[in-house]
Amino acid sequence: MNTLKALNWRYAVKKFQADKIVSDEKLDIITKAFNLTPTSYGLQPLRLAVVSDPDLKYRLYEKSMHQEQVRTASHILVICIEDIVDSAFIENNFELQKEIRNTPDEVLAPFRNFLLEFFKEKDKSEKDKWAINQAYLALGNLLTVCAKEEIDACPMEGFQPDAYGEILKLKEKSLKPVLVLPIGYRDEEDQFASFEKVRRPIEETIIYYK
Amino acid sequence: MNTLKALNWRYAVKKFQADKIVSDEKLDIITKAFNLTPTSYGLQPLRLAVVSDPDLKYRLYEKSMHQEQVRTASHILVICIEDIVDSAFIENNFELQKEIRNTPDEVLAPFRNFLLEFFKEKDKSEKDKWAINQAYLALGNLLTVCAKEEIDACPMEGFQPDAYGEILKLKEKSLKPVLVLPIGYRDEEDQFASFEKVRRPIEETIIYYK
Repeated sequence: MNTLKALNWRYAVKKFQADKIVSDEKLDIITKAFNLTPTSYGLQPLRLAVVSDPDLKYRLYEKSMHQEQVRTASHILVICIEDIVDSAFIENNFELQKEIRNTPDEVLAPFRNFLLEFFKEKDKSEKDKWAINQAYLALGNLLTVCAKEEIDACPMEGFQPDAYGEILKLKEKSLKPVLVLPIGYRDEEDQFASFEKVRRPIEETIIYYK
Repeated sequence: MNTLKALNWRYAVKKFQADKIVSDEKLDIITKAFNLTPTSYGLQPLRLAVVSDPDLKYRLYEKSMHQEQVRTASHILVICIEDIVDSAFIENNFELQKEIRNTPDEVLAPFRNFLLEFFKEKDKSEKDKWAINQAYLALGNLLTVCAKEEIDACPMEGFQPDAYGEILKLKEKSLKPVLVLPIGYRDEEDQFASFEKVRRPIEETIIYYK
């Protein structure tokens, strides 16, 4: 499928075929695509939980307003932000750059010092807001990747983050869940599958300055 | 290119070939993809400015810390949020649903009333935050679409929003610029083109619950 066909084919699936599982090959593409998401300053303040355990999936369903797409999904993806973005976290990223690119310390120093200072001045809620923005960016990437790979998905902001955190033991990993993306294959009974897409007219949403 | 190849091929381009223009055909795909971005409650609180006028591009460059990727881009895309998300804005979306899907008023009523109430209780900064999240989602979609279409791009948070707003007369359109994406074709002199991609090890960023 070409890009526009794929984006027109996708929709927010409300019911998946519960017995149709996303293959390891497709999961490999999706998880690698997540890790390739570009992020602000390249800091990647994100991790992805990939849940296929039936018991855990059911417990997450109970904390997602009992929405069918969570119960019937092949896998539930949970985009999490790093709860601690401190100097050590930033230093780790520069260590990684040195390792991968062999960049000398003196070349990295100015940007490293700028970032250390920049984040030292941010309070917790500003850091969270910054990281949450990156989570949405990753969601945008994943939705398009899933569509291209013909994997169905349902982007969700509505769930109980504290309960998710407890069920997946995210606090111990210094993570906060911010977005949920059940994936799988649409059930033909899902009435939303046949609905016409609703979008504002493109003449209204695109403004040209030629 | 397959999905992962495309995501590995892309990088944040710092210098474009100034004389190589993105075709109308590709622009058509990119703008349609933008308009197809799924958004929270389907409300699309976003519009996209597409700037190719040389004088305007130069003026935006001056308000982007003189970064070469803005000066040399074929087009500068500016993702804007709607500055006014009020009852009329929400009602418009339901009118659109009625028009496109022929959904009867009584079917739409419960969700419409919920949304009207929900946004009435939000203050301006909460609404902005909500819309900005959707802007990042759209950026994630656009970055992946550009990569698949072999269009180079550079996602940018750093620019002077007030100056952009004035240059593009966005206030008159009730818009606020939040993200910038110059697009074009990478210049071979751009040293960043050959840099190895830096990403955290995938074993660290993906957590399986099997």
